[in-house]
Amino acid sequence: MTHHGSKSLRQAVLRANQLIPKAGLAALTWGNVSGVDREAGLYVIKPSGVAYEDLTEDLLVPVDLATGAVLAGDLRPSVDSETHRAFYLRWPSIGGVTHTHSTNAVAFAQAALDIPVLGTTHADTFNGPVPVARQLTVEECARDYELNTGIAIIETIGDDEAALAMPVALAANHGPFTWAASAEKSTEYAIVCEAVAEMALKTLALNPAASTPRHLQERHFKRKHGPDAYYGNAR
Amino acid sequence: MTHHGSKSLRQAVLRANQLIPKAGLAALTWGNVSGVDREAGLYVIKPSGVAYEDLTEDLLVPVDLATGAVLAGDLRPSVDSETHRAFYLRWPSIGGVTHTHSTNAVAFAQAALDIPVLGTTHADTFNGPVPVARQLTVEECARDYELNTGIAIIETIGDDEAALAMPVALAANHGPFTWAASAEKSTEYAIVCEAVAEMALKTLALNPAASTPRHLQERHFKRKHGPDAYYGNAR
Amino acid sequence: MTHHGSKSLRQAVLRANQLIPKAGLAALTWGNVSGVDREAGLYVIKPSGVAYEDLTEDLLVPVDLATGAVLAGDLRPSVDSETHRAFYLRWPSIGGVTHTHSTNAVAFAQAALDIPVLGTTHADTFNGPVPVARQLTVEECARDYELNTGIAIIETIGDDEAALAMPVALAANHGPFTWAASAEKSTEYAIVCEAVAEMALKTLALNPAASTPRHLQERHFKRKHGPDAYYGNAR
Amino acid sequence: MTHHGSKSLRQAVLRANQLIPKAGLAALTWGNVSGVDREAGLYVIKPSGVAYEDLTEDLLVPVDLATGAVLAGDLRPSVDSETHRAFYLRWPSIGGVTHTHSTNAVAFAQAALDIPVLGTTHADTFNGPVPVARQLTVEECARDYELNTGIAIIETIGDDEAALAMPVALAANHGPFTWAASAEKSTEYAIVCEAVAEMALKTLALNPAASTPRHLQERHFKRKHGPDAYYGNAR
Repeated sequence: MTHHGSKSLRQAVLRANQLIPKAGLAALTWGNVSGVDREAGLYVIKPSGVAYEDLTEDLLVPVDLATGAVLAGDLRPSVDSETHRAFYLRWPSIGGVTHTHSTNAVAFAQAALDIPVLGTTHADTFNGPVPVARQLTVEECARDYELNTGIAIIETIGDDEAALAMPVALAANHGPFTWAASAEKSTEYAIVCEAVAEMALKTLALNPAASTPRHLQERHFKRKHGPDAYYGNAR
Repeated sequence: MTHHGSKSLRQAVLRANQLIPKAGLAALTWGNVSGVDREAGLYVIKPSGVAYEDLTEDLLVPVDLATGAVLAGDLRPSVDSETHRAFYLRWPSIGGVTHTHSTNAVAFAQAALDIPVLGTTHADTFNGPVPVARQLTVEECARDYELNTGIAIIETIGDDEAALAMPVALAANHGPFTWAASAEKSTEYAIVCEAVAEMALKTLALNPAASTPRHLQERHFKRKHGPDAYYGNAR
Repeated sequence: MTHHGSKSLRQAVLRANQLIPKAGLAALTWGNVSGVDREAGLYVIKPSGVAYEDLTEDLLVPVDLATGAVLAGDLRPSVDSETHRAFYLRWPSIGGVTHTHSTNAVAFAQAALDIPVLGTTHADTFNGPVPVARQLTVEECARDYELNTGIAIIETIGDDEAALAMPVALAANHGPFTWAASAEKSTEYAIVCEAVAEMALKTLALNPAASTPRHLQERHFKRKHGPDAYYGNAR
Repeated sequence: MTHHGSKSLRQAVLRANQLIPKAGLAALTWGNVSGVDREAGLYVIKPSGVAYEDLTEDLLVPVDLATGAVLAGDLRPSVDSETHRAFYLRWPSIGGVTHTHSTNAVAFAQAALDIPVLGTTHADTFNGPVPVARQLTVEECARDYELNTGIAIIETIGDDEAALAMPVALAANHGPFTWAASAEKSTEYAIVCEAVAEMALKTLALNPAASTPRHLQERHFKRKHGPDAYYGNAR
């Protein structure tokens, strides 16, 4: 067992992190992606406060999944590391986590509103509204804040199966977290979350009573997910 | 007759597909363009779920116009292929179809509102409001959904002549479809649709009662279309 | 005298036209810039319907200032050529004209609202609201439409001195026109017009009653204009 | 002592100025950054009206901190130079100042509204609302306008300690000013100010009653600032 994470894991996590500025999901050093190696009992995550253009595989921080301790190097992990860890511990099927400060998703988080399902762009990927988690209490903010951020989201989402079914939530007054089988897939969900948030914000400006029939939502979700899916190509 | 589509058709359809990310009309693998060869009885279309940056002429999928069957290769066509096919069968004069998830046009589709004619940018290209088609029923969503999406739009637009006169519609809660004599021209209409949707959304934010006199609309449309057109250069 | 316009004039008009896509002021082939040579009695202008990336000095169209006739070549001038000509004939001090379909300025034109002076970004360049011209009548649309578009703007602005003092107006339901001593300066004004329109639209969304004290407007305008100006460097 | 500013100071101020167009914080020649050398009793600042792409270390203008006089060269400093000087004189701990015309921050300045703390993106960097300073009087606009702009902001912020605690303010109907220990850090604050302004504008469109609990604000601010900070890496 290595304490550093495998080269392939580091490559995937680096690529996923680099998608954040490329897709315009955060300014400066904001946002972070991690990927887990469950056999090795660790995940690797973006170091705190490092610019995306300076990021390399070697700068990614390996963190002990059981304890949260840094396993190698002298860099601190992302300040949100404990939120990632809470997700990995609660949801054994997930392999990667992404957090961004993308503008439109943050607007919903700050407005304390779910992102409603207003069309097929949303329903193609997310099978229901993107939920906003509850606010943390004074005590939850004072101690183990990042862990508690994860716990509040876990309360909103539910168990492992539920997490696979709804791979996104908004931390209240904060921003979106997404998770998936791999780091890169979790970042793709962050891209979708921002796109549907912008579409929803503009739709509600045009028509505050907008909605989508449930049968259309289901049809689109099932085009891409489940045993009858017929979207995409295995390449 | 080839089962693959001619090289010139594939080149044109590839270029048109590449315009989608270049013009910012869709994220990820969303959106699709096709072009038809009526003599060969086929159309070529973007494969499902393939990234635009990976797209090549060879990856485009040839589809039998009469049956919807894939004529060559092992890739699935775009999930919206049957919507394209419905248009080609109903409207013999069209040569290309484009579908995008561009943000502002989707906002009107999700709001279930036509894009009104608020100025000359719109009237230069589209001779009336961009119509939103009716919602599909539970039955239409359950079976032959993509074909029914096309049929609802055809109901809204009308016959071949009407389709040439109004080359765009919004699938309700989904997004814009455009068609034209060629694939690239249909993508150009998708660019116009997004531009006028953004302008309309901002205009309505400033003045919910905004409108354009019909005589100004007609003047602009006739500058570019019909026997008295005087826009452009034949080069 | 040449019928083609001098090389330096063509270079300046080409550069100004190329600013339109670079600054995001129009999609596709929309928009146009011209520059005048009063001694030669002609102006050169973008050809109609030509893509900006294909534009060269040789493709610019020389137009007779007195008659509106094309002086050389087989390309049509921009469809808005007669609007430019109306400005050159009425306002002897101007040397260039720009027309764009920039999104936020068009929104004000479509809303039939002046762009109000809400801050110093506006007042630094424009000494008062950007006016929207009156709608054209049925008769004005039916005959000599482009000339009448210019005449309606001239009615709004006034004489040569007034045109130098307020180098921008919105054609109702159409979009912005700007003019200046040179083609490139008129395009710079088009950039400012779009920037202040976007700022104004967002300001009014936050506070519909927003305004700016007149003494602040005057101070900023005089920093950059008139005998006491102290902005910029003569280089 | 040099009258030109050290090479390292000029390099840092050049880099910070170049961030303004790179981060989309201003069009044309708008905006300016300066950096101070307190031992030499001078600051260097962008010259007035020079395009960012033409800017070099040699073109930056050295200004006497005590008198505001240009110390070398024949270029005028930014027209806002006296506002920068007011800040340097009042706040001995700051080393750099940035002024931009970024769209969303300007919208708040023009709306005469503070940017409220609606989430953690804001609280991570700014420990309270971004304040808008009071309007200047007729007399303050008529004489020493730029100095008075600085004085009104200083009234709003307070002393040196307060300036370090809240490194940003909006000049009413004008735009944001930021300051920090270095020129580049002040430009980073300008990037944050624009990002949180856009998020706030969109949040208020979704929910005019949006707010953030004070304990969440404090938690985020203290993650990055003060003795218990745990954000970032010393590299």
